[in-house]
Amino acid sequence: MHSDIAQLVSLALYSPKPEESVTFFHDLLGMEISHREGQSVYLRAYEDFYQYTLKITEASQPGMEAVTWRAASPEALAQCVAHIEQTGLGGGWCADDYAHGPAYRFCTPDGHRMQVLWELDYFDAPPDLKSKLRSRPSKRPLRGVPVRRLDHVNLMAGDVPANRAFMQEVLGFKLREQKIGEGGAEVGAWLSVSALVHELALMRDASGARGRFHHVAYWYGAPQHLLDIADIFSDYGVRIEGGPAKHGTSQAYFLYCFEPGGNRVELFGDTGYLIFDPDWQTVVWNVANEGDLEKSSIWFGGALPKSFYRYGTPVVGGHSLEDIGR
Amino acid sequence: MHSDIAQLVSLALYSPKPEESVTFFHDLLGMEISHREGQSVYLRAYEDFYQYTLKITEASQPGMEAVTWRAASPEALAQCVAHIEQTGLGGGWCADDYAHGPAYRFCTPDGHRMQVLWELDYFDAPPDLKSKLRSRPSKRPLRGVPVRRLDHVNLMAGDVPANRAFMQEVLGFKLREQKIGEGGAEVGAWLSVSALVHELALMRDASGARGRFHHVAYWYGAPQHLLDIADIFSDYGVRIEGGPAKHGTSQAYFLYCFEPGGNRVELFGDTGYLIFDPDWQTVVWNVANEGDLEKSSIWFGGALPKSFYRYGTPVVGGHSLEDIGR
Amino acid sequence: MHSDIAQLVSLALYSPKPEESVTFFHDLLGMEISHREGQSVYLRAYEDFYQYTLKITEASQPGMEAVTWRAASPEALAQCVAHIEQTGLGGGWCADDYAHGPAYRFCTPDGHRMQVLWELDYFDAPPDLKSKLRSRPSKRPLRGVPVRRLDHVNLMAGDVPANRAFMQEVLGFKLREQKIGEGGAEVGAWLSVSALVHELALMRDASGARGRFHHVAYWYGAPQHLLDIADIFSDYGVRIEGGPAKHGTSQAYFLYCFEPGGNRVELFGDTGYLIFDPDWQTVVWNVANEGDLEKSSIWFGGALPKSFYRYGTPVVGGHSLEDIGR
Amino acid sequence: MHSDIAQLVSLALYSPKPEESVTFFHDLLGMEISHREGQSVYLRAYEDFYQYTLKITEASQPGMEAVTWRAASPEALAQCVAHIEQTGLGGGWCADDYAHGPAYRFCTPDGHRMQVLWELDYFDAPPDLKSKLRSRPSKRPLRGVPVRRLDHVNLMAGDVPANRAFMQEVLGFKLREQKIGEGGAEVGAWLSVSALVHELALMRDASGARGRFHHVAYWYGAPQHLLDIADIFSDYGVRIEGGPAKHGTSQAYFLYCFEPGGNRVELFGDTGYLIFDPDWQTVVWNVANEGDLEKSSIWFGGALPKSFYRYGTPVVGGHSLEDIGR
Repeated sequence: MHSDIAQLVSLALYSPKPEESVTFFHDLLGMEISHREGQSVYLRAYEDFYQYTLKITEASQPGMEAVTWRAASPEALAQCVAHIEQTGLGGGWCADDYAHGPAYRFCTPDGHRMQVLWELDYFDAPPDLKSKLRSRPSKRPLRGVPVRRLDHVNLMAGDVPANRAFMQEVLGFKLREQKIGEGGAEVGAWLSVSALVHELALMRDASGARGRFHHVAYWYGAPQHLLDIADIFSDYGVRIEGGPAKHGTSQAYFLYCFEPGGNRVELFGDTGYLIFDPDWQTVVWNVANEGDLEKSSIWFGGALPKSFYRYGTPVVGGHSLEDIGR
Repeated sequence: MHSDIAQLVSLALYSPKPEESVTFFHDLLGMEISHREGQSVYLRAYEDFYQYTLKITEASQPGMEAVTWRAASPEALAQCVAHIEQTGLGGGWCADDYAHGPAYRFCTPDGHRMQVLWELDYFDAPPDLKSKLRSRPSKRPLRGVPVRRLDHVNLMAGDVPANRAFMQEVLGFKLREQKIGEGGAEVGAWLSVSALVHELALMRDASGARGRFHHVAYWYGAPQHLLDIADIFSDYGVRIEGGPAKHGTSQAYFLYCFEPGGNRVELFGDTGYLIFDPDWQTVVWNVANEGDLEKSSIWFGGALPKSFYRYGTPVVGGHSLEDIGR
Repeated sequence: MHSDIAQLVSLALYSPKPEESVTFFHDLLGMEISHREGQSVYLRAYEDFYQYTLKITEASQPGMEAVTWRAASPEALAQCVAHIEQTGLGGGWCADDYAHGPAYRFCTPDGHRMQVLWELDYFDAPPDLKSKLRSRPSKRPLRGVPVRRLDHVNLMAGDVPANRAFMQEVLGFKLREQKIGEGGAEVGAWLSVSALVHELALMRDASGARGRFHHVAYWYGAPQHLLDIADIFSDYGVRIEGGPAKHGTSQAYFLYCFEPGGNRVELFGDTGYLIFDPDWQTVVWNVANEGDLEKSSIWFGGALPKSFYRYGTPVVGGHSLEDIGR
Repeated sequence: MHSDIAQLVSLALYSPKPEESVTFFHDLLGMEISHREGQSVYLRAYEDFYQYTLKITEASQPGMEAVTWRAASPEALAQCVAHIEQTGLGGGWCADDYAHGPAYRFCTPDGHRMQVLWELDYFDAPPDLKSKLRSRPSKRPLRGVPVRRLDHVNLMAGDVPANRAFMQEVLGFKLREQKIGEGGAEVGAWLSVSALVHELALMRDASGARGRFHHVAYWYGAPQHLLDIADIFSDYGVRIEGGPAKHGTSQAYFLYCFEPGGNRVELFGDTGYLIFDPDWQTVVWNVANEGDLEKSSIWFGGALPKSFYRYGTPVVGGHSLEDIGR
């Protein structure tokens, strides 16, 4: 059965240091600024087809404003909205936002704000940005180590099973990989509506907080680019949390860092593996099996620090990067 | 609208030098031999989930025996068969073949043999081949530069529009990219049922022959591996036809070579770009536009030789590699 | 016996489009501008230790002004000058140039202008360019795909053996690789004073001209960067002459392009192989041996066009890129 | 002043599990077995020019038997021997060993056994191993992720300054990089006789033992190969100690692992930077400077575990891998 959702469209983040955040995405990750409006800046990677995939808005705390999905068709959008309304988690239609048509708002059980839409604006390159590579919506930028496209979002949840089930049952996501912790508790879920292993991951939030943001991932497609951006991060003082290394879940080469506003950003160095099997059986990593705990996060490369499992945005008391330590 | 087809399952090739062909795929491309039966050998890449993706059968001429697709569900299979039967191109159900359940046979308008099925055998690794990487169906081999999975098939067709329309209208493929040649003739079509740009490409066969095979592609996922296998091909006397270079269509890094039986094989060094947009508009390359002819085949890297546009298997009179020259 | 020469220091080029040339090296190859003086601009790569490695001076024709070598010590400089003076090719000491101490000028038998010095200025990074990587003289730039250091120079010569012998006998270079063409004529020589296969290559100039420049090479050290810069060149309209591909001679991954002034530039994607053997026997490629002609230039990757063997700067009548064709 | 030593020739190791050690180097690192004699096996990488670069001999404990250097010429050998004899550390000439001519034995002040020679056997490939790439002494192997050549050796020393001074003053090595620890003590030295940053590194041995072995490094030249071999190590149960990551000292991409006999092996993914400056000033990393402690070992990538600083071979009481922990 196919999902009513077709793809991840964009992510809206809050930053207490918006200009520094924009400089990070523009100068180091080579993203283009599409638009500025009020306290918000809209950006896209050079192979993102839509007008923007990242919105950064000034706020006192970092964190996620909302994640936007595109439905598979106008009919799928209507059907999707009907399913959400039955759950009581719907938030009604919102007026058009920049470059987005009518969008229906809702929350996950954990309280993450999301919206789904059909209509939206495609990026139409001005002559100086137009590429002769016809599937490339704008020229490869000459800044930093430019990311190619938005890949996925990872959210922390107080109750992984409930939120995972909502994404599956209401929105039609498929559970691709799953992580089982001590006592059999589900502590991680990787969900997708496409051949990707995930457009959305859910991780248990041990802090007791709800609705927090773990990271957004942009995609390179060549492992060397993780080495390149890590080199730049080290030279320009950006804090690397983990990697470059290779994940067990998703198999992808990754790097985690923090943008100046305090949100975690992941860079993906390749595609990992893709899922085409229509009868896919969820890959389960269980801490009860020898090696699974370590290998699911890190197939090889340096271990992830404690902060990876405890730090999210907004920051909650006693769980800042300094509190957690390395 | 979703396709009844979910994915490319396997390819069956003929080879006049079967043992040399098997050695090529086993020793240089690191594929595993799953089975031998009669005049046939069955192989898989180490991240292919099914029992095999390549069948090589001894024959006097190289060429393609058949391509096998998997339906999206048992219901989709039934619906797919019904659609095919309406075209008069159906060939009926065939008895089970090795590792494949009941399959419905049909031909494209050009005469390429295909089949579609739902049931098939998954590869279940013996202990010594089992990987601790749970999404990896068998350990990474220690031979050659091992390919990871089957990617796509490219077929030559006397009439590209008719065959492309058959794949779209009867089987539900989407037209992702298209190449328009002199006089407005459609000379190439890239079709898919997933986020990949193509599981199937069609190229005009100028020889007047019908139903010929152009190439099968296996996937690496890291561009360096194309450099590695090219180094090995040069050292071991395998003829490289083109690349390593980067395609315009699909954006992927590629290498073309010939296996000892005479069939063309492509290696894919990365994923190129992926398509998640549910409202994708076909990317059109038109020879009438400056730069499109060259850039569609080769975004950068050495030009493709004449053989690329004229040589297919089975070989037809006056179109052998020697006849065509470089 | 050790050479009096220790290393290649810098190259001075002429350009009829100096600002466009500087933009090419600065924006696409990420080089830093060290200085501007008169009609000249001085640049360096971010891991070049000296004040500059490339000087670009406005002139009506592209071509090479001079190549500068550093002696192994003050004593070696004196000895080197004595050797040159015996040949009658010496040109005397010249007044200090920017960032270079006293230099002794000379010509090769073919007329290429060279100079040798001991004293020169090191680059001392201002605080904002200082790297925490202590062997890196300045931070990795955020522009284009930044080259790391100057690698080598390739000169065309009417008489390869005479010029090669001069470099060996007078300056102490070692002959690392050699190419023998039709009739046993020496058509190429790769010479070095270090573990590199060459700091200087000589190629036969079939045009009848003397003292011409073939190319200068800057070094990346990671093969992926050749794919990256080729992608940028294709997007920004820079003409690629050959590659990315792998040389037989030197084994290095390479790319050839033309800077806007018309001079050929090579990018080196790795180190190739290094020579530590104190008793190295010259590697000889002889067109009389099967495969040597092709494999010496291109171990794998697309063939080099005719222009590679005929075009040099300054351009001579009938040998422009347009005249030669592809 | 040039060194009497030209290059590192070979390393002889002890292994309590010689057949497993040989399988590791042959199957996973793709090395060729040149010879077997007594309890010893001799191996070489496919771009090692000499008959062997690694000798593995059965013994009850892992550790280093000896390291062999080649002099720059027969005259340099004589001069080198004269210098050593003056120190009282000379051990006399030894009878020819396999593929090595007359060699003069000596010890470092710490007791590491070394020898220096001029005459030795080059590898002469049999027809089936001969490469058409004329600078490649044998075809690229089809096993594992084959290393290309021996790169360097790292030894632990109770007294780094004394041993470093011996290598400089007696053998003519240059001090390229240096690490200063707490209280101003010299804890690491990187020494070379060529453009490489080191053929020999010395690290302080905090265990109180003398003359121990830290690691031998083989070279790939392409960063992706570290990711490839790490993938294989994870699949085949080889313990990775650190990396893939990038060193501060030498700038090279690296991976540390343990061969089955217990000796540490490093793989080098690129060349790092090369030193051509004849007046090179030692790069000093001082723990007293902020960031130097961390950045000198790891420019980026996961931290090195305690074992890296404490484990060497032979193993001394209380310093086994199990004792040290992670």
